[in-house]
Amino acid sequence: MSDIIIDFDRKARCAVEEAILCERKSVTQIEQIIAIGLEKQVRFLFTRLEEQKWQKLNPTLREHLDYCALSHTAVMGKVETPSAQEPMIAIVSGGSSDTGVCREALTTLNYHGYSAKLFEDVGVSALWRLTNALEDINKAKIIIAVAGMEAALPTVLSGMTHRPVIAVPTSVGYGVSEGGQLALNACLGSCAAGLMTVNIDNGFGAACAAIKLLKSFS
Amino acid sequence: MSDIIIDFDRKARCAVEEAILCERKSVTQIEQIIAIGLEKQVRFLFTRLEEQKWQKLNPTLREHLDYCALSHTAVMGKVETPSAQEPMIAIVSGGSSDTGVCREALTTLNYHGYSAKLFEDVGVSALWRLTNALEDINKAKIIIAVAGMEAALPTVLSGMTHRPVIAVPTSVGYGVSEGGQLALNACLGSCAAGLMTVNIDNGFGAACAAIKLLKSFS
Amino acid sequence: MSDIIIDFDRKARCAVEEAILCERKSVTQIEQIIAIGLEKQVRFLFTRLEEQKWQKLNPTLREHLDYCALSHTAVMGKVETPSAQEPMIAIVSGGSSDTGVCREALTTLNYHGYSAKLFEDVGVSALWRLTNALEDINKAKIIIAVAGMEAALPTVLSGMTHRPVIAVPTSVGYGVSEGGQLALNACLGSCAAGLMTVNIDNGFGAACAAIKLLKSFS
Amino acid sequence: MSDIIIDFDRKARCAVEEAILCERKSVTQIEQIIAIGLEKQVRFLFTRLEEQKWQKLNPTLREHLDYCALSHTAVMGKVETPSAQEPMIAIVSGGSSDTGVCREALTTLNYHGYSAKLFEDVGVSALWRLTNALEDINKAKIIIAVAGMEAALPTVLSGMTHRPVIAVPTSVGYGVSEGGQLALNACLGSCAAGLMTVNIDNGFGAACAAIKLLKSFS
Amino acid sequence: MSDIIIDFDRKARCAVEEAILCERKSVTQIEQIIAIGLEKQVRFLFTRLEEQKWQKLNPTLREHLDYCALSHTAVMGKVETPSAQEPMIAIVSGGSSDTGVCREALTTLNYHGYSAKLFEDVGVSALWRLTNALEDINKAKIIIAVAGMEAALPTVLSGMTHRPVIAVPTSVGYGVSEGGQLALNACLGSCAAGLMTVNIDNGFGAACAAIKLLKSFS
Amino acid sequence: MSDIIIDFDRKARCAVEEAILCERKSVTQIEQIIAIGLEKQVRFLFTRLEEQKWQKLNPTLREHLDYCALSHTAVMGKVETPSAQEPMIAIVSGGSSDTGVCREALTTLNYHGYSAKLFEDVGVSALWRLTNALEDINKAKIIIAVAGMEAALPTVLSGMTHRPVIAVPTSVGYGVSEGGQLALNACLGSCAAGLMTVNIDNGFGAACAAIKLLKSFS
Amino acid sequence: MSDIIIDFDRKARCAVEEAILCERKSVTQIEQIIAIGLEKQVRFLFTRLEEQKWQKLNPTLREHLDYCALSHTAVMGKVETPSAQEPMIAIVSGGSSDTGVCREALTTLNYHGYSAKLFEDVGVSALWRLTNALEDINKAKIIIAVAGMEAALPTVLSGMTHRPVIAVPTSVGYGVSEGGQLALNACLGSCAAGLMTVNIDNGFGAACAAIKLLKSFS
Amino acid sequence: MSDIIIDFDRKARCAVEEAILCERKSVTQIEQIIAIGLEKQVRFLFTRLEEQKWQKLNPTLREHLDYCALSHTAVMGKVETPSAQEPMIAIVSGGSSDTGVCREALTTLNYHGYSAKLFEDVGVSALWRLTNALEDINKAKIIIAVAGMEAALPTVLSGMTHRPVIAVPTSVGYGVSEGGQLALNACLGSCAAGLMTVNIDNGFGAACAAIKLLKSFS
Repeated sequence: MSDIIIDFDRKARCAVEEAILCERKSVTQIEQIIAIGLEKQVRFLFTRLEEQKWQKLNPTLREHLDYCALSHTAVMGKVETPSAQEPMIAIVSGGSSDTGVCREALTTLNYHGYSAKLFEDVGVSALWRLTNALEDINKAKIIIAVAGMEAALPTVLSGMTHRPVIAVPTSVGYGVSEGGQLALNACLGSCAAGLMTVNIDNGFGAACAAIKLLKSFS
Repeated sequence: MSDIIIDFDRKARCAVEEAILCERKSVTQIEQIIAIGLEKQVRFLFTRLEEQKWQKLNPTLREHLDYCALSHTAVMGKVETPSAQEPMIAIVSGGSSDTGVCREALTTLNYHGYSAKLFEDVGVSALWRLTNALEDINKAKIIIAVAGMEAALPTVLSGMTHRPVIAVPTSVGYGVSEGGQLALNACLGSCAAGLMTVNIDNGFGAACAAIKLLKSFS
Repeated sequence: MSDIIIDFDRKARCAVEEAILCERKSVTQIEQIIAIGLEKQVRFLFTRLEEQKWQKLNPTLREHLDYCALSHTAVMGKVETPSAQEPMIAIVSGGSSDTGVCREALTTLNYHGYSAKLFEDVGVSALWRLTNALEDINKAKIIIAVAGMEAALPTVLSGMTHRPVIAVPTSVGYGVSEGGQLALNACLGSCAAGLMTVNIDNGFGAACAAIKLLKSFS
Repeated sequence: MSDIIIDFDRKARCAVEEAILCERKSVTQIEQIIAIGLEKQVRFLFTRLEEQKWQKLNPTLREHLDYCALSHTAVMGKVETPSAQEPMIAIVSGGSSDTGVCREALTTLNYHGYSAKLFEDVGVSALWRLTNALEDINKAKIIIAVAGMEAALPTVLSGMTHRPVIAVPTSVGYGVSEGGQLALNACLGSCAAGLMTVNIDNGFGAACAAIKLLKSFS
Repeated sequence: MSDIIIDFDRKARCAVEEAILCERKSVTQIEQIIAIGLEKQVRFLFTRLEEQKWQKLNPTLREHLDYCALSHTAVMGKVETPSAQEPMIAIVSGGSSDTGVCREALTTLNYHGYSAKLFEDVGVSALWRLTNALEDINKAKIIIAVAGMEAALPTVLSGMTHRPVIAVPTSVGYGVSEGGQLALNACLGSCAAGLMTVNIDNGFGAACAAIKLLKSFS
Repeated sequence: MSDIIIDFDRKARCAVEEAILCERKSVTQIEQIIAIGLEKQVRFLFTRLEEQKWQKLNPTLREHLDYCALSHTAVMGKVETPSAQEPMIAIVSGGSSDTGVCREALTTLNYHGYSAKLFEDVGVSALWRLTNALEDINKAKIIIAVAGMEAALPTVLSGMTHRPVIAVPTSVGYGVSEGGQLALNACLGSCAAGLMTVNIDNGFGAACAAIKLLKSFS
Repeated sequence: MSDIIIDFDRKARCAVEEAILCERKSVTQIEQIIAIGLEKQVRFLFTRLEEQKWQKLNPTLREHLDYCALSHTAVMGKVETPSAQEPMIAIVSGGSSDTGVCREALTTLNYHGYSAKLFEDVGVSALWRLTNALEDINKAKIIIAVAGMEAALPTVLSGMTHRPVIAVPTSVGYGVSEGGQLALNACLGSCAAGLMTVNIDNGFGAACAAIKLLKSFS
Repeated sequence: MSDIIIDFDRKARCAVEEAILCERKSVTQIEQIIAIGLEKQVRFLFTRLEEQKWQKLNPTLREHLDYCALSHTAVMGKVETPSAQEPMIAIVSGGSSDTGVCREALTTLNYHGYSAKLFEDVGVSALWRLTNALEDINKAKIIIAVAGMEAALPTVLSGMTHRPVIAVPTSVGYGVSEGGQLALNACLGSCAAGLMTVNIDNGFGAACAAIKLLKSFS
């Protein structure tokens, strides 16, 4: 068994709580963390928890988790109540294959008490879908733009809006776009000035960035 | 001195003439080819002939070349007369840094007797430039789309037009887009169905493709 | 459940219909799309639909799909009647391992009402197979050349024919050719002028390019 | 001569003005842009303008440029007056080799009327330099963290502060860190949640992101 | 059956014994090696022995192995008695996902008669965990620092301690950090002078380096 | 079903027979080829035939194959009788994990009527194993050197012998050596002049090269 | 000044003499080696000696070198007299840009007393050039095939001849073929069985391989 | 002018002094650092100071530097007196092209008061050079092994000695070994257990590692 040191203090120090990245953790390690949570009466957000691994968890521990198979996230303990206001974050995606990443961002935001509005499947191969939604998208303070393949969406959207855009490249695609490196580079090398980027498929990170921004400016 | 075997027959066999790729050829080798051309009374198209190398050529040979410093091409001998018709090819580019590649395509087309219409600096970061030009672009039978950096232009344009698009990624950009590999992959991994791609900075190749297409359908 | 916005308008705008790329879509999302198709009385072409995923689809929905295990494509609804003419497209492949990609191209063409003639297993390691077929291949207006490993076929063929060639590199091969990047680069970096290339294994894209070309010149 | 279409409208649409990326533009093209600026009585920000190229500009045009050799930027026309307030942006860098990138960010901010506070040479190999500055850094609303080599600074800083951090990886380093790809990936793959990243050496982009954020929240 | 030549002499010549790398060895080959060990009455250390492969071993042979599923190591025969002294090696890790690699190092050290002290889950995103442990870590003569993702830990730790640090990058992470290449390069390209690095996930190698150092200086 | 054109003529033309690369061929395609062989009364060598795929073959067809699970090869029809002479080829390998590749080379040689002598597990980490075997290795006319990981064996051996060496890098190793690219480059970039290299894991290719050499000089 | 240890014994041990790779050696180091040669009355072959560096050598030392600017080789001392026989080696190249590499191979062969026949500029984009030369090429015992870009020549040639082929990929090309990695992989991943490959631009290595083969079979 | 914060405290904290990496620092910045040194009466070690840059330094400042053109290092102020003992460090290199890197390590050691013994040009292509020196090499406590190209030297040496080996891969080589990545990976992926590696060409880093080790064990 390995030592696990939870950074309970992170929210105060860094504005977002520590999340438990489940990839490469064994079932035993995850169970150990759930047990710590139960004992200390704290809540946890688990990310990248594959369905197979989730199913292997001890049922008496697993029942404390609210699992979402689409985004591979699980919440243990209470979710903060979002404010009644109009959502300040828009999550825009290129295609329905990006759904899992969008939902990871959404779950992370909700967990910290923020709501968001989703605009899915508005990729640039049919630009009318994006221009139709633009006015609504602009109502948010921050835009999270999720796209795979050649990821032209964050660039095109960023050229249309005065709102800051956080791009999340996804691993959707095959051949040259397999694994998401193309989408990532397309966001980083964009001709649209001011685009900010996070790791491939990192909906969690984009949400944390948005939260840190909202808190810094509130 | 190395043996040089010119493929005079290529136009009949492959629809386009052999061009002389000057990169990695010595000044002596290029002079040798000019001499063959003068002796055999044939014409030549030289590509990727750097200005420095061009200036080192023997002046009595060099004077037979019509050199373009923007595209690094040189024409020796007569250019075919383009037909009086409306140009059947549109060359569309993302930014003014792509000019050299556009002109290499244009020179190649002109050399073979084809005219083309240029639409430069209409990249997607200011989409109005492209939508303003769209009606005119659509008058061509084939579109050559030239773009560097994240190269979203060919994808976006291809999603707006019923015309076939040949993408030429360029090496414009820095950091992740340095060298043009990102632009190349963005064209190949595009969500726009039917985009065809040539090598980085290969304006010559795109023009040859267009010529082969026009001849095959004429 | 994620939002799905079908671009019914694409054929009118872009000359080819939207296809449903099934890779990275969940079974639920694909079922949702079939349901939309049934409700709206429209047809769909599904690509990259792995046999395993296809088998997991709800049987009452699945029965509306005409599935091809070789090419991982499925057609829902009617296929257009091809014209009675001699096929205007030749699909040429290097080896029998490229069959799946050839068939994806063929299915896409047929779905849009075009026929094509197949010339399989004529790779350059036994050049007589290609030279024997050359006269027949040249009867087509456009050639789609499919090859993996070192992908010399598109280059060699392009040096023999006046017809335009669209190259489809495949992921066939191991070691340095694993994944198809070598085949892709061999097509892009070819010494044969005018070769056009699409993404690795992208038979669908090559077919769409051919259709856009045929429509633009008809 | 190539067509150049200036997007004068960009500030209204996208919150930041178009800048002129000089890399890969010819001296003639840059002169042409200066002439447009003089004629239309507008101002311009030039980026990545190498000293060699700057010196080749026509002196009567060049005298309209305020050039900074450290950051390779030039300003033509008036700079907006920054507000009298405490700067809302902190620019923090790992080492004195990152100075050029820091200054590109600073010039871009100043050009748009924003001031910023610089904290240079506070890399993690001597952590006391960073902890000494932390209280002052936290006074800003947004932190731009500039670092090359293994780029641990943005990660470590992000784990110490509740402020949002925009990371700018730089191309400082040799061997495995040559070119900046390692620094870039270290920012993207960081264990610190919520870090946002821009392209290698892209101080301009980080400044634009900060401006868009400040305007969105003002 | 393949020939297997055990290098029984290695400890005398190279200070560490030959270990059996089980990756890519067949079950039959591993059984053959166990049989050699039994026959010659020698001991063996097996590394990278996946649980699945271990379970397929002939039970009468397998019972001679002491298997550790966490580190994928197995020991056959006796482990040397560690000296009663304070451990001279500290193993420090970034997160609990690095546990397997830490334990591979620990098992290798123990097998050769060395003890070590573990400091797990003290990554830099919560720096207090590392500074709290620093005094204890410094009691060792050599530090093995294990970290994945952006692997800032070895750099930061190396900047805090006068002790030599051997870095073991791990394959923990996703997107740009998938596979461990980022962590590896972050260690190699570190701004902290004197960091030594071994292959990705190579806890065994780090332990062998420590043993060779301890023996050379004893 | 796809068209399959066997190149029966290859031995006469190229000195080695066509082999059937089974990777990426479907079970149906392989069965079709066996049927052609039975019908035409010809023999075949199958390579890279995974055990799983082999087991799925129709038993009445499969019984005509002599399968080797170690090398993933299968022979259908008669093997040529090797000459009674001392073998003219030595196959030398670094470790017992390279056995499969060694045996693919051996099977290919035997199939064409050549014998070879194996020297396995003589890698450079225990150089005495190689120097002990050197005199015997030198009795061959050609050496095939098989090695994974950092593949120092072909370099070291080549520096000790006057015999020509064909290097076969293998995909044995993990971390930086995973997939065999390191072993490949170590052979190609070797300081030992005259080393010839084939693709990763390509024991078949090395054997074919040896056969072509032996025939050219016989 | 650095220590230099010449391996005078190499020809006896390895069949080819040590050559002096001048790349990355300083002018002083090369002068030191010339001086050793003069003192010991031995001959040397220098490779990759750039013209600039050659010109900086002390003239009294330089005059002992027979320099070839095309291949960047220099010979100091006597060249062995080639046998009067028909050359046993054919050097075949794709284009006139490959001349330098061809000549490096030729110089190396001549230096060791072997003659060779050159067949230059017979690349596959005009296949008639190669088929015209085939009968003559086949008179050699060994073929060295030199090609850049997509390097289809070695594959196509190997499919036409029973002679063994050593491929030398060259760094000729741009975009995806820049640097020669594509040409290298095309040779290694070739569908033509038995092709042997050396490093990019390594004409010297191919010649050494041929010499070792000729000696082993003589 | 940029802020520069010297970490004067580093030796006490980390056992080695801060060195000034001159790559990417401007002449002005280096002059500024020399001035700080003169003012504070401290000494400095400058690394990677190209001769061109060194020559541009203000002569009155430059005269305080003891410059070594071979290793691109400069020492300002006094060098510590090495102990009279037999050197505890051996620096072993593959070829005379590695001299610069060897001397960077040597200068760094000397600067900190350590002597070392050099064994240059003992690469594995002529193994007798290494075996001849082995007894002397083993007299040191720590071996620094410097090698480029396929870098087999550290692996072979590590398999012969009980002493710990720190490998320094160098950027010597061309084609696949250009830039040193092959040499680096060959050290990291070595079959010799316990090899420790530093960045490409990083003689400074290897020396610092040796110093930290010697101090930790003294």
